[in-house]
Amino acid sequence: MGSTLIRGGTVVNADAAVRANVLLRDGVIAALGADTDDWSADHVVDAEGMLVMPGGIDAHTHLEYPVDGFTTRTADDFHSGTVAAAHGGTTTVLDFVKKEPERSLLDTYRSRRDVAAAKSVIDFGLHAIVPPREQQPDVLDDLRRLVGEGATSWKFFMAYPGTQMVDDGELLEGFELALEHGVLPMVHAENGHMIARETQRLLADGRAAEAFHATAHGHDAEAEAVHRAVVLAESVGAPLYVVHVSSAAAADEISRARAAGARVWGETCPQYLAVAYEDYADLGEKAASYLCSPPIRERGNQEGLWRSLVTGAMSTVATDHAGFCLHQPEDLPPQKLRSPGYFPKVPNGVPGIEDRLMVLWETGVASGRFDACRFVDLVSTRPAKLFGMFGRKGAVAVGADADLLVWDPAADHVISVASSHMRTDYNLYEGMRVTGRPVRVFSRGEQLVGPDGSFDAAAGRGHFLTRGKPQLH
Amino acid sequence: MGSTLIRGGTVVNADAAVRANVLLRDGVIAALGADTDDWSADHVVDAEGMLVMPGGIDAHTHLEYPVDGFTTRTADDFHSGTVAAAHGGTTTVLDFVKKEPERSLLDTYRSRRDVAAAKSVIDFGLHAIVPPREQQPDVLDDLRRLVGEGATSWKFFMAYPGTQMVDDGELLEGFELALEHGVLPMVHAENGHMIARETQRLLADGRAAEAFHATAHGHDAEAEAVHRAVVLAESVGAPLYVVHVSSAAAADEISRARAAGARVWGETCPQYLAVAYEDYADLGEKAASYLCSPPIRERGNQEGLWRSLVTGAMSTVATDHAGFCLHQPEDLPPQKLRSPGYFPKVPNGVPGIEDRLMVLWETGVASGRFDACRFVDLVSTRPAKLFGMFGRKGAVAVGADADLLVWDPAADHVISVASSHMRTDYNLYEGMRVTGRPVRVFSRGEQLVGPDGSFDAAAGRGHFLTRGKPQLH
Amino acid sequence: MGSTLIRGGTVVNADAAVRANVLLRDGVIAALGADTDDWSADHVVDAEGMLVMPGGIDAHTHLEYPVDGFTTRTADDFHSGTVAAAHGGTTTVLDFVKKEPERSLLDTYRSRRDVAAAKSVIDFGLHAIVPPREQQPDVLDDLRRLVGEGATSWKFFMAYPGTQMVDDGELLEGFELALEHGVLPMVHAENGHMIARETQRLLADGRAAEAFHATAHGHDAEAEAVHRAVVLAESVGAPLYVVHVSSAAAADEISRARAAGARVWGETCPQYLAVAYEDYADLGEKAASYLCSPPIRERGNQEGLWRSLVTGAMSTVATDHAGFCLHQPEDLPPQKLRSPGYFPKVPNGVPGIEDRLMVLWETGVASGRFDACRFVDLVSTRPAKLFGMFGRKGAVAVGADADLLVWDPAADHVISVASSHMRTDYNLYEGMRVTGRPVRVFSRGEQLVGPDGSFDAAAGRGHFLTRGKPQLH
Amino acid sequence: MGSTLIRGGTVVNADAAVRANVLLRDGVIAALGADTDDWSADHVVDAEGMLVMPGGIDAHTHLEYPVDGFTTRTADDFHSGTVAAAHGGTTTVLDFVKKEPERSLLDTYRSRRDVAAAKSVIDFGLHAIVPPREQQPDVLDDLRRLVGEGATSWKFFMAYPGTQMVDDGELLEGFELALEHGVLPMVHAENGHMIARETQRLLADGRAAEAFHATAHGHDAEAEAVHRAVVLAESVGAPLYVVHVSSAAAADEISRARAAGARVWGETCPQYLAVAYEDYADLGEKAASYLCSPPIRERGNQEGLWRSLVTGAMSTVATDHAGFCLHQPEDLPPQKLRSPGYFPKVPNGVPGIEDRLMVLWETGVASGRFDACRFVDLVSTRPAKLFGMFGRKGAVAVGADADLLVWDPAADHVISVASSHMRTDYNLYEGMRVTGRPVRVFSRGEQLVGPDGSFDAAAGRGHFLTRGKPQLH
Ligand SMILES: [Zn+2]
Ligand SMILES: [Zn+2]
Ligand SMILES: [Zn+2]
Ligand SMILES: [Zn+2]
Ligand SMILES: [Zn+2]
Ligand SMILES: [Zn+2]
Ligand SMILES: [Zn+2]
Ligand SMILES: [Zn+2]
Repeated sequence: MGSTLIRGGTVVNADAAVRANVLLRDGVIAALGADTDDWSADHVVDAEGMLVMPGGIDAHTHLEYPVDGFTTRTADDFHSGTVAAAHGGTTTVLDFVKKEPERSLLDTYRSRRDVAAAKSVIDFGLHAIVPPREQQPDVLDDLRRLVGEGATSWKFFMAYPGTQMVDDGELLEGFELALEHGVLPMVHAENGHMIARETQRLLADGRAAEAFHATAHGHDAEAEAVHRAVVLAESVGAPLYVVHVSSAAAADEISRARAAGARVWGETCPQYLAVAYEDYADLGEKAASYLCSPPIRERGNQEGLWRSLVTGAMSTVATDHAGFCLHQPEDLPPQKLRSPGYFPKVPNGVPGIEDRLMVLWETGVASGRFDACRFVDLVSTRPAKLFGMFGRKGAVAVGADADLLVWDPAADHVISVASSHMRTDYNLYEGMRVTGRPVRVFSRGEQLVGPDGSFDAAAGRGHFLTRGKPQLH
Repeated sequence: MGSTLIRGGTVVNADAAVRANVLLRDGVIAALGADTDDWSADHVVDAEGMLVMPGGIDAHTHLEYPVDGFTTRTADDFHSGTVAAAHGGTTTVLDFVKKEPERSLLDTYRSRRDVAAAKSVIDFGLHAIVPPREQQPDVLDDLRRLVGEGATSWKFFMAYPGTQMVDDGELLEGFELALEHGVLPMVHAENGHMIARETQRLLADGRAAEAFHATAHGHDAEAEAVHRAVVLAESVGAPLYVVHVSSAAAADEISRARAAGARVWGETCPQYLAVAYEDYADLGEKAASYLCSPPIRERGNQEGLWRSLVTGAMSTVATDHAGFCLHQPEDLPPQKLRSPGYFPKVPNGVPGIEDRLMVLWETGVASGRFDACRFVDLVSTRPAKLFGMFGRKGAVAVGADADLLVWDPAADHVISVASSHMRTDYNLYEGMRVTGRPVRVFSRGEQLVGPDGSFDAAAGRGHFLTRGKPQLH
Repeated sequence: MGSTLIRGGTVVNADAAVRANVLLRDGVIAALGADTDDWSADHVVDAEGMLVMPGGIDAHTHLEYPVDGFTTRTADDFHSGTVAAAHGGTTTVLDFVKKEPERSLLDTYRSRRDVAAAKSVIDFGLHAIVPPREQQPDVLDDLRRLVGEGATSWKFFMAYPGTQMVDDGELLEGFELALEHGVLPMVHAENGHMIARETQRLLADGRAAEAFHATAHGHDAEAEAVHRAVVLAESVGAPLYVVHVSSAAAADEISRARAAGARVWGETCPQYLAVAYEDYADLGEKAASYLCSPPIRERGNQEGLWRSLVTGAMSTVATDHAGFCLHQPEDLPPQKLRSPGYFPKVPNGVPGIEDRLMVLWETGVASGRFDACRFVDLVSTRPAKLFGMFGRKGAVAVGADADLLVWDPAADHVISVASSHMRTDYNLYEGMRVTGRPVRVFSRGEQLVGPDGSFDAAAGRGHFLTRGKPQLH
Repeated sequence: MGSTLIRGGTVVNADAAVRANVLLRDGVIAALGADTDDWSADHVVDAEGMLVMPGGIDAHTHLEYPVDGFTTRTADDFHSGTVAAAHGGTTTVLDFVKKEPERSLLDTYRSRRDVAAAKSVIDFGLHAIVPPREQQPDVLDDLRRLVGEGATSWKFFMAYPGTQMVDDGELLEGFELALEHGVLPMVHAENGHMIARETQRLLADGRAAEAFHATAHGHDAEAEAVHRAVVLAESVGAPLYVVHVSSAAAADEISRARAAGARVWGETCPQYLAVAYEDYADLGEKAASYLCSPPIRERGNQEGLWRSLVTGAMSTVATDHAGFCLHQPEDLPPQKLRSPGYFPKVPNGVPGIEDRLMVLWETGVASGRFDACRFVDLVSTRPAKLFGMFGRKGAVAVGADADLLVWDPAADHVISVASSHMRTDYNLYEGMRVTGRPVRVFSRGEQLVGPDGSFDAAAGRGHFLTRGKPQLH
C-alpha cells in the first residue's frame, strides 16, 4: 500500500492540537515529527492550513435495518450508507443487530455481520440488541458467546412495550451479565408505558397527525427512564451508556448522576442540537420526515443540550442514522408516508450519517461553543474508547490505524440532498451553510475521498471490527 | 545539546497511552515513531516497561516565601525547592508574588523573578497576588503591566481580613480586569470573617492548641467562599480557578457550578487526599507540622474529594508547598514552633513539592481510582493549559519542550524525610510505600535526574516563563 | 349521651395551642370558651395541666389482614386492634381491602366493611387496593363505584411482582381515574424487580437468615420507586401519597419533588424513627419480629427521616400495624416463625397501633424535635385532611366529632407487651420510658378510656366512615 | 367596651375553616360555639356567607421613614398609614427603627415608638435596624436593652455599602447575639458590592434611566446574599428571616436550605407577585413610581415566586410599604421625581399597606393557587408567630385579642388611588378588580371599619406591642 506523508498540518487530538507531520505506512500511523526533511514517503500530501484529525466514528447507525415488526427497513444499505459516511468524514460505523423472528440472536448477528462485510467500504462493528426474554429464553447464552465475537456493547429498550421493551428485572439481569463480561450496556431510555398512555390519549382526542408524535414522547418519559436506568446500573455496579439523549431534562439526570460519581455516559445527535420541533410542527404529512424517537424537541430545549456537551454531561455525538424516503421508491418497502396522518405508523428515524461532522463543526466549533479538540473527542476519541476500539481507532497516534481526515476549517459548503450520498430523498439540514469539511479521508492508510471529490473504495473493503472491552475513563 | 532517543516506552498523555519511541532534539520533542530503526540520536535510552510522561507542573508553591506580616519565611529557597521538585518529577513550578510593604507589586514581581532565576534548576513562572486596594491604590495599573511580563494569573484572598483579604467589590473589579486581559483569576476561598469569628470563640473558650486550627476553619467557611466566588465571577463573565480545595462540600459547590455551565476549575493537594485530621489531632504541639489553610480535614472528607477528582469537578493537583521546619534551624527565621500551644501563630503550610507525583500515583492510580492518563492531566496537562503554557509544557507532543519523565510503574520506594531533598525536617508521608516513581527526569532535553539517583543541574539553569493566555477548554 | 365540659386544659391543634374550655354535646364539640362559668354540662372534667388534642388517626393499619397469598393473616382482628388503638389514643383507623381470589374488589370491600363494623370500637374507614388488571379485568368499574361508598383513597403496589405489583401502565391508568374522581392514590414505593433480583442473589449466596431481608430491600429500590411514582403522577396531574417511607433517600426524593411544586405527601412510621437495623441484625430467628417492608433501616438513616418530619417533607405518621406473634398461638394461622432461617417466607409487618402516639411524643416532642402542634398535625389533622375526613375528624374545633384526648405531658410510663392490648406477644418498643400519654380518650363524646385505665366500649360501636374527597392543602 | 357576637360566619384559621359563632368580650375572643342561642351580647353581627379571619399583620412597613441619608422621608405618617392599613384589613403593623445620626439606636427607638404611639390607630411594633459598628461602637449594648423593650427582631442590611451595609463579621456577631437573646435576625439580602459594581457600569454606559434600576439589582446579587446569610446564620445556630424576597432564584435558595433543615423563613410582597418589570420598563421617568429594592422583576419570575408560596418556601407576605408621591406635594420633602432620569437618586419604595390582603386574596385565593387557610397563615398567623405576638395576635382563638375581619369573599371591588387612604398619589394596582375584601374590621373588640365604609378610630388608640420571643415552628 505504500506510505504517505501528510505535511504541514495541525494534528488535532482530544487533548491537544499540535503542528506535526504525519507518516502513514502499512495502514497505520508510523510516526509524527516536527522537522522531517529526512523522511521519505511514496506520497506527500500538503496539509498547510489544514487540520489532521482521526476519522469520525459513528457509534449509532441503522443500515438496511428492519423496523415495525420487520415489515419494512431503512433506505440505506451497508454500501450506500458507508459510502455516504466516508464522504462525510466518518471512517467507522457501529450498527445494531436485532434478533430476527426465526433466528437466534447469535445467528442473526453472524448473518448480519457477513452481509455488512460484503458491502461496507469502511470498518464497522455491531452492537447486539437484547430482546425480551420471552422472544428467546436462552438469549443470555448467546450474549455470552457474542462477547468473544466482538459484541462488547449490548442495547436494551425501555420503550416499545410488547415488542422490544424489557422490564426492570431483565435490565438488571442484563446489566449484571454485562458487568461480568466487561460489556458496556446501552439503553434507549424512554418510559414505554408513559408514551403508550399519552399516545392512547392523543388518539382518543383525534390528535393523530404526524407532529403529535413529539407530544406523545414527553420529556418526563425520557428523563424518568434515564434516572431509572442509572439507578438500576448503579445497583449492580455496571457502567451505562444512554443512546440518543434528546431532552435537556434527561441530560440533567446524567449530569447529576455523573457528579455523584456514577459511571454513565450520554450520546446525543445532530438532529437534537440543530433542528427543532418548530421546524416541522406545521408541515402536515411532511412532518413525517422529521419523526424519530425520542423526538426532535422544542427550540428552547437546545440550549440545555448544548450545555451538556460543553460541561461534559454528554460524551459522544452519533447520528442514529435511520433514513427513510419521503417519496416511496419502487425498490424499497414502505417508507415515511406509509400511513399519512397517523403518527403511530410512521417509520421512526432520520438520516444524517454523512452530515454529522459538518453540522457539529459548524454549530459547535465554528459558532464558538467548543474547540476542535472537544469536537474530536465527541465524534471519534470517546466512542473509540467506550466501544473497545481505542488504540486502533480514535486518535492520530503512533501505531493506530491510519483512519484520518484532512479537514479544511475554512471550506465553504452548503448541505443539500442534491450533493449528498445518502439514499434518502431529503436532507434534514438542507441549505445549511457550513465552514469546515473533510477534503481528504483516509481509511487504514488508503485515501477514500480526495479533494476533488474523487472517491475510491470497493464494496467490501471495510473490515468487521472484533471489539475489545470498553475503556471507561 | 545533542539528541536523545527514548525507546520502547509507553507514552502517556492526558487522552491516550500509546507505545512509541520519542526523539528529543535541541531541547524539544522532535518526533514520535513506532518503528524507528532508521532514526539516530546521540543518546539512546531504553524505556522498555516504562511510561514516558510529560514533566510534572506544580501550579502552587511558596518558595522562600514571606508569611505572617513578613516576620518569617518558608524553609526552602528557589534552589533547594526546585532541586526537590526535580527529584520528584516536577519540571515546572508556579510560585507567587506577594507585594512587599515598601515596594509596588510590579517591583516586587521583578525582584522576585530575578531572585528565582538565579537559583532555580527548573523552569518557573509567577502568579501575582492582588493586594487590598488600600495597600497600593494604583495596583490595577501594575496588574495591567504584569500581563505583558507573563503574569497571566492573579490570586485573590477571601480570607485573612486586615492583611490580604479583599472584599467583594475588589474581587469584582479584579475579575473584570482579568477578563479584559485574558488573565485567569485564582481565589483562596475561605470566608475570613467566619474563621476570625470562630477563632475568637475558640480562644475565648481556651481552645488554643494547635489542632483547633482545623476547628476554626470550617467546611462551611470554605464552601461559602467558593459559592460566592463563582457567583461573582459569573456575574462579570470571568473564568475562575479555586486553589487548594480541601473540603468535599467546597468541591461539591464547584461540581454544581460546572454542571450548570460555569467556567470554574478546582485544584486540590495531596495532603487533603492522603492525610487526615485524625493523623494530628492528638499530637499536641507537633500538630503544628500539619497546619495549613484550609486545614487537613477529617478522614471522612477524603472520599468526597477523591470523587471530585474522578468526576472531573477538580481539575488539578498541586502542592501548596510551604514548608517550615519543626525544629528551629539556626539559619532560618522562626519556624513551626514559634509559639507552641497557640494555633493562631503557627506559620501555615506543609511541604510536599517532591512527593506530589509519587503520592498521587500511589493513592490515585495504583489504588485503581483513575488511570495514568487522568494522572497526567491532573499534574501536568491541565495546569499547562490553564496557566498559559500549553504547547511548550504539559504534553509529550511534537514541538513541545522536552520536559519529560521516564516513570517506572513498578518501582518500590518508601517516602522518608531521610531520602528527600526538601529543606523541612519531617515528611507528611513518612513511611508511605509507593509503587511508581520517576527514574529519569528531563528538562528541555537535559537529563537532570538519572536512574542511579544522579543529579546534574546548575542553579540558574531554570528559565522564567513568560506565560501566555490561559487555554480554557 | 349528655354533655361534658373539659375545663382548664390547653387545646392543641395543628396551628395553635390555646387555653380553653371545651364543651362536648351530642357527640360533637359544641363550644370553646375562656371564661365559661355560666356554662353547664352533665359531666365536668378537670384538665388543668393537661393538653386537649384531637384523637389520633392511624391512616395505615392491617387488622385481620390476609397475607402471603391468603395463607395466613395478621394477629389482631378489628376488635382487639381497635381496643388497642383506643388505649393508645387513636380514635380512627383506616385499614385496607385486598381483593380476595374468588371475589371482586367491590364485594370484598363490602364484606370487609361489614366484618369490621361488627367488631370495631372506634370509627374506621377502608382504603381500596388496586389489584393487577389480570386479577380482575373490570376492576376500574369497581373503583368508580367505590368512590361513592367512601373509598376515596386507592393503594397501588410497586413491589411484589407476580402478586400485587402493577406496572407503570396500570399506575398511569389508575392515577388518571383517581384524578377524575377526586381520589387520592397511594403507593407502596419499592421497585419490586430490584428486590427480587437482590433476594435471588442473596439466596444464591446462602444468605437466607432473617436479617438479610433488610439487605434485599435496598434504599435505592425505595428511592427509585418514589421518584418514578412522582413522575407518573405528575405526568397525569394526579396527587400522590407515599405510604411508609423508610429511607432518608426516599424522603429526599419527596422533599425535592415538593420543593418543585409536586403534590406529593409522605407517611412514615414510628418503627423507622425509633428502631434500627442494628437492633435486630444479630438476633437470629428472632429478627423475624422486626421484619417489615420496607425494612427497618440502619441507625444512620434515622436522622434524615427525622429531618423530613421537621422540614415537612413527610406529612403523616401512621403505623402500618400488621402484627404477627413470635410464638405460634393455637388459634392463629402461621405467624412470624413459620419458616425459621429463611427470610422470604417471614410474614411481613410489625405491631404498633397502640404505641404510635406515645412513641412519637417521646422521641419527637419530649426530645425537642418539634412541638405539640406539629405532633397533632402528623398524627391527626393531616391524615384527616388527606383522607377526606376533616371537618368531622382531626381538630378540636366547633362542630367536629368529639374525638379527643386528654393528654398528660408529664405522665411517666414504660411501654411493655405486658401492659399493652395488642394481640402480639412482643412489643417493638419494650422498655421505652415515655413521658406523655392519653389519660382520657373520647370518641364522639363518649369516654372510652379513663384515667384509672378503665375501658368502656362495646364491639361494634365504631362507625364506618364514608369518606369524602381529600383536602389537599 | 361591651361584647359582640359574630354569628353565622365561617371562622378561618391557618389550619382549618369551621362554621362557628364568635363571642368578643373585653377586647378578646371569649368563646366560639356552634349552637349559641343561649349566648347574649351587646351587639350581634350577622356574618352569614362571610369569613371571619384574624386581622392582617403587616410585618414590614416604613411609615414616616427617613431615607437617602435622612434627606427625605416616606409619604405616609403613622396616622395616615395605619388608617389605610385598617381599611385594608390590617390590624397590626411592624415598622423599623433606623438609628438617627445624632442619636443612639436606643434613643431613636424610644423616640420613634412615642411618635408612633401618638398617631397610630392600630397596634404596632418596631424592628430595630442594626447599623454598621462604626456608626455606633456600643450598639450591641443597645440591642441587648432593646430586647426587654419589645424589639425581638433585628434587621441587618447586606446592601448599601457605606451607609447601612454590615460585613460578614458584623452579621455573625449580630446573629450570635440574637441567638443568645431569643431574637429573630432579619436580613435585606442583596450583595451591595455587586449592585454597586453593576450600577457603576451602567452609569459609565450612560444607562441612568429609571428602569435600569432593575438591571443594577441582579437576581444573582439577591440569591448570593440569601445563600450567604443562611450559611452565616447556620454557622452560629441562629434562625433567620429574609425580608422582601423578590427573585425566584433567591426563593430557591431558601427552599433548598429549608429542605436541608435550616431554620430560615422568607417574606415576599404583593408587588413581586402581581406586578412586573414589563409594566414599567417603558414608562420613562414615571417608572420611578415602581422603583424599590430589590426591584420588581420580569414577568417570567413570578411563577417561581408563586410556587414558593404554595410549597412553603416563603412563609409570609408583607408590603415593605414605603410610599412616595409621584407629583411633589408642598408639605413633603423630595419624593419620587427628585432627580428624573437618574435611577440612583430615586427614593426606593412602593406603597401597598392598604392593598395587601385584597391583592393577595385575588391573585392567590380567588385564582385557585391556595386556600383561605394558607392566606391567613401568610398574612397573619405566621408573622404573629415569628415576631413574638402569637397568643395575642394571628388567630381567631379563645383568649386572643379580638383583632378580626369579617371578610366578604364575594365582594366586587376595583382598586384605585381614588378610593384608597394612603398618602401616595398613585396605586400600583390601579384598576385591578378584586372579589374579596373586609367588610368589618375589629381591633381589640372595637369595630374600626364598618360595612358602609364608616371608620371610627382615634389617633393614638393603637398600642405599642412589647413583643416576646419568636415562636419558630
Ligand atoms: Zn432508540
Ligand atoms: Zn437507534
Ligand atoms: Zn491559600
Ligand atoms: Zn498557597
Ligand atoms: Zn406496604
Ligand atoms: Zn401496609
Ligand atoms: Zn430592604
Ligand atoms: Zn423595607
